[in-house]
Amino acid sequence: MPRVVSGMRPTGKLHLGHLEGALKNWNRLQHEYDCFFFVADWHALTTDYADPSQIRPNTLLMVGDWLAAGLDPNRATLFVQSLVPEHAELHLLLSCVTPLGWLERVPTYKEQRENIRDKDLGNYAFLGYPVLQAADILIYQAHFVPVGEDQVPHIELTREIARRFNKLYGEIFPEPQALLTQAPRLPGTDGRKMSKSYGNDIRLTDPPDVMWEKLRTMVTDPARVRRTDPGNPEVCPVYALHRVFSPPEHQQQVNVECRRAGIGCVECKRLLYENLRERLAPIADKSAYYESRPEQVRELLIEGSRRARQRAAQTMDCVRAAMRIAV
Amino acid sequence: MPRVVSGMRPTGKLHLGHLEGALKNWNRLQHEYDCFFFVADWHALTTDYADPSQIRPNTLLMVGDWLAAGLDPNRATLFVQSLVPEHAELHLLLSCVTPLGWLERVPTYKEQRENIRDKDLGNYAFLGYPVLQAADILIYQAHFVPVGEDQVPHIELTREIARRFNKLYGEIFPEPQALLTQAPRLPGTDGRKMSKSYGNDIRLTDPPDVMWEKLRTMVTDPARVRRTDPGNPEVCPVYALHRVFSPPEHQQQVNVECRRAGIGCVECKRLLYENLRERLAPIADKSAYYESRPEQVRELLIEGSRRARQRAAQTMDCVRAAMRIAV
Repeated sequence: MPRVVSGMRPTGKLHLGHLEGALKNWNRLQHEYDCFFFVADWHALTTDYADPSQIRPNTLLMVGDWLAAGLDPNRATLFVQSLVPEHAELHLLLSCVTPLGWLERVPTYKEQRENIRDKDLGNYAFLGYPVLQAADILIYQAHFVPVGEDQVPHIELTREIARRFNKLYGEIFPEPQALLTQAPRLPGTDGRKMSKSYGNDIRLTDPPDVMWEKLRTMVTDPARVRRTDPGNPEVCPVYALHRVFSPPEHQQQVNVECRRAGIGCVECKRLLYENLRERLAPIADKSAYYESRPEQVRELLIEGSRRARQRAAQTMDCVRAAMRIAV
Repeated sequence: MPRVVSGMRPTGKLHLGHLEGALKNWNRLQHEYDCFFFVADWHALTTDYADPSQIRPNTLLMVGDWLAAGLDPNRATLFVQSLVPEHAELHLLLSCVTPLGWLERVPTYKEQRENIRDKDLGNYAFLGYPVLQAADILIYQAHFVPVGEDQVPHIELTREIARRFNKLYGEIFPEPQALLTQAPRLPGTDGRKMSKSYGNDIRLTDPPDVMWEKLRTMVTDPARVRRTDPGNPEVCPVYALHRVFSPPEHQQQVNVECRRAGIGCVECKRLLYENLRERLAPIADKSAYYESRPEQVRELLIEGSRRARQRAAQTMDCVRAAMRIAV
């Protein structure tokens, strides 16, 4: 079975954007591929080294949400990056064949150094972030990597590093292909992209009153000031969520009635709320189950990491032999 | 017992510069400290990644010379860097707390990128070379590092990285002190610093006829053209070797007679040759013994690496706990 690798930074409890952007996709992939899904805790350190205290609790909360959303540890290998130290060894070896210029040209590198002001990103590891990503993927000799559009340059760099390695030392790594995730960009409650760091996210596990309060105060079409004004669903963030989480007949109803002021924003949001609750209630229940059993999540990750490590060690044997550095 | 760490790139058979600059010192240190001496094969990769085929054979030849020169695997832990993958893990973690600016300012970095033209040094790993050195040292929580003058800035960087880590996560690493090696700079046969890469080196294991041929054609005081010209030992590379390898009475004799043309260069070189042979013959014999038993050297390195790994794993447990990334 072809192998798929993907990782997520340990951000704690997940939101709707994670569900639609990654988890739904991972759920499907685990039935079709040999999947390796990991908690990218070392990646978190490259930006959050100054205060890593949340990495461990966030790991357990996040993986609880993975399981709640349907990931099956008997189908996919669920593991923690730092529990597979072979990633660090391959990272070091790939560092030798990766020109500095390739890294300095990665579009997200300059962008993030300019935009993220509250964290120090001028460290050596942050520049090498894409090399660590390449190691994460190549160490499983992966064939596919599910990514969003913005991550495509990173996969391209992984492919370049694989090509360079293969040319120097022999064909060890398949060139991994991007599996483009066709997920719509979900708006958060303020209309910007949903993101924990913007504080505009709706969690899979928000209690009903919290979720309703977030939706009730969510921005809508700014031109629709009064109940009697007709609205434009195309520019309404609430409608964008309807399109993802409501059945077609509700989408149709809202699309028509909003335009002729036949439905008010509160009523429209209530409809979305009911549909979201229906979708999320079982996930929230399972998430609460795992949150009260952190030891169970921990053991499952240790077992998954043990399996991942076996596979990674196989690759490293080939890598060391190809580079002729085994004693 | 305080711990000492030092490493050598796998350059194959060693020359007089290694003997005086490092091995003599290591021999002494192994009686006074808990010593970890390693083959820096990953460091070799940062510059020689394009052709690593000599790393393995050179490792065994070099360690054969270590043993021949007196290193005792029952006193010092002799090991191979790549057999202790914890070095790579610590390297990655230290990368997160090392500012790029610190690395770009290391004096040897710019110097080597400008001077070494036949190898590509523009890779990510070469910039991070001092971080890997820091990991090599700190992973044994070393107290002392024997170095030459030119390596002092690297130790200073290791100390800075240790201070930064300790400040962020707690006191894990002692700040290692440089043990300055008071070795004279040995000239090679062309008068420049003795170095394998200059092709001007006299090996510990050169057969008598090869060694004599190297000495016979070695440069001397360029102002002494004829046998009857008086010479100046102060500017003569042959005399610089006398000062290290000949007994005081021979040094005295050469110093006096050369200045009044009482001894010819060939005769002077013959005297040096005899003294070198006396010192090196037992080393060459032992080296030949190990060269014909590579399997014995290999096993000794595997056993040493196993011991080093136990010590490194202890440190990594502390590091992971301090950074709170253990699951």
